[in-house]
Amino acid sequence: MDHVRLSDAGDSVIILDQSLLPLEEKYIELATLEDMAGAIKKLQVRGAPAIGIFAGYALAALSKQQCRPKAISSCCGASGSSDEGFMQILQDQGKILKDARPTAVNLAWAVDRVIKAVRVEMFRARQEDPMRLNANAGARRLAEAAAREAKAIHEEDKAMCKAIAGYGLEEIKRVCEETGHNGPIGILTHCNAGPLATSEYGTALGPVLLGSEQGVEFKVFADETRPLLQGARLTTYELQKAGVDVTLICDNMASTVMKQGLVQAVFVGCDRVAANGDTANKIGTSAVAILAKHYGIPFYVLGPSSSIDMNCATGEDIPIEERDPEEIRSKFYEKPVAPEGVRCFNPSFDVTDAELITAIITEKGVFRYPYSDSLTVFSK
Amino acid sequence: MDHVRLSDAGDSVIILDQSLLPLEEKYIELATLEDMAGAIKKLQVRGAPAIGIFAGYALAALSKQQCRPKAISSCCGASGSSDEGFMQILQDQGKILKDARPTAVNLAWAVDRVIKAVRVEMFRARQEDPMRLNANAGARRLAEAAAREAKAIHEEDKAMCKAIAGYGLEEIKRVCEETGHNGPIGILTHCNAGPLATSEYGTALGPVLLGSEQGVEFKVFADETRPLLQGARLTTYELQKAGVDVTLICDNMASTVMKQGLVQAVFVGCDRVAANGDTANKIGTSAVAILAKHYGIPFYVLGPSSSIDMNCATGEDIPIEERDPEEIRSKFYEKPVAPEGVRCFNPSFDVTDAELITAIITEKGVFRYPYSDSLTVFSK
Repeated sequence: MDHVRLSDAGDSVIILDQSLLPLEEKYIELATLEDMAGAIKKLQVRGAPAIGIFAGYALAALSKQQCRPKAISSCCGASGSSDEGFMQILQDQGKILKDARPTAVNLAWAVDRVIKAVRVEMFRARQEDPMRLNANAGARRLAEAAAREAKAIHEEDKAMCKAIAGYGLEEIKRVCEETGHNGPIGILTHCNAGPLATSEYGTALGPVLLGSEQGVEFKVFADETRPLLQGARLTTYELQKAGVDVTLICDNMASTVMKQGLVQAVFVGCDRVAANGDTANKIGTSAVAILAKHYGIPFYVLGPSSSIDMNCATGEDIPIEERDPEEIRSKFYEKPVAPEGVRCFNPSFDVTDAELITAIITEKGVFRYPYSDSLTVFSK
Repeated sequence: MDHVRLSDAGDSVIILDQSLLPLEEKYIELATLEDMAGAIKKLQVRGAPAIGIFAGYALAALSKQQCRPKAISSCCGASGSSDEGFMQILQDQGKILKDARPTAVNLAWAVDRVIKAVRVEMFRARQEDPMRLNANAGARRLAEAAAREAKAIHEEDKAMCKAIAGYGLEEIKRVCEETGHNGPIGILTHCNAGPLATSEYGTALGPVLLGSEQGVEFKVFADETRPLLQGARLTTYELQKAGVDVTLICDNMASTVMKQGLVQAVFVGCDRVAANGDTANKIGTSAVAILAKHYGIPFYVLGPSSSIDMNCATGEDIPIEERDPEEIRSKFYEKPVAPEGVRCFNPSFDVTDAELITAIITEKGVFRYPYSDSLTVFSK
């Protein structure tokens, strides 16, 4: 069951409340703009692609509400301003959703995409009736266009995740064949790049989830991923739920797990990939890559090709965001664990050097080092 | 001020209650055997050498109590059994202290050492008075012997820590000179091997504390050290208190700190060193060593030469203790951070391969790779 979806009536959005995970699994129905924006702010829905999918459905649901009788005077009449009135309301709603998390690129992208689709529908209606250039499409038709576009965003994300999963699964099967590895395939992953952050298969967890469906046995080690513990809270939840063998470790235990030969490959997601292959991802990823190289274990980055930023020459061009020190000192804890006033350094991600990455796996295929050659296919 | 010491009256032990750190700094006075054993059990005093020092003082204080008038009939009389009575009580007390933490080697060692010193004093008294072979030393004299031995244990530990600190400081100054590094010296440390676990200078923190006293500027990065957070709770506290510039990081941030050139050397303690130099220390130490090698940063192990176990050929002979999964899933947290029933792997330490260690610094000097040569001086 999708963890973000449009209700059957089409006038509300149903989501799995991620802020309650992993201890409580509760679906909530959001029908008002206020609740929808609030869900983004309160991290009830999180993960860039998932937020984009959610925003699309939110606008679709709100558009459907514009078709209700009580709203008929403002948007469903035959007056010349009626489609415009619908658009105006939709745009205002889109702005409020965007403002709920200003830095989330997918959120703005999805909002703009749905609004554009509705506008296209509006103009199409006028084109169909050239004699009456101001003809209205009507709220129902515009709302249907919004819902169609929102579903397309979701379906495209699913298809992209599935393609990544397929390429990743093929790659790890090949590696095991070449190295003569038998039995369950050990995978180490850092942070969370699973279905909750995207749709269906996720990115880094995609090969594992797809492979498990096909009867391939995996044994996954999930780094807890301090300070925000996405690995402990979300990755273990997702894998446990999918019936995959998963073991939670502290980030500093990865070396031991690798040394004991328990890991055949590392799979991680990515926030941004530079043109030379340097990859920004959750803090700690570069450490895992260095350990993997030391122990001779292949290290894979999995993500949509939209993460590859050809305007970024190398990792040095990627700014490193620093976050609140209290995330390290007190968040999640019963009481603070370090003295008051102690300085904390809390970079939210790090850059893994291209030469540490065995391959970058996208929905367009598997790209290998040197990336300054292989990634040129994405040059504009 | 020593965090473990005998009271001025000599009949109680005063300790800094480490279980309240870092939020509360409270000294408590322990006068009964029950409270003393309880302090060990409740981790109010922790760190193998510190527990040894504490146990010595505890027996000294209890011995002093045997001199009180109310106890005079049992141990201070002139009867032939009186010294023996004193010894019997002392031995019973020692056994109860030992049982408070059966695996702590230093605890048993210190208890046995004090008891032996008292016994030697008892025989010495008899020797001094050869005409009366059953002469009693008397409780006062025996108690003084116990106190003397306890103080000797403490002083020896201080001298050992200071020697390690001296060798370590010399080494890091030499490295900075050779590499032309100016300004504050960046040190990364993992877990806690400071004064709280030992005395005065500690082991891994020794060069930093000694150097700071001499005006050498350091900038220390302390790994928080999951799951028990000794770095966050104790290392930052100790360094902050000593006025040393300290920054707390999550374990997975060490790679970023090293990449940014903020670290000139890594200093860690050790639990056990094998004859070939393989070193067991807190979980995550081997990862720090691999990162240091990747970034070309020297990696030092600091500890007393008693940690070198020549009966252990390599790290493979060192058993790895696995601890309670709840340390990862729920300890310290307001509520559990991972789903119920999720498997956790929680090894308490790991083995760092000898070739990753630049030098092993002990009170006897600096030993370098290959350790199968340099450590032979410790062969029996």
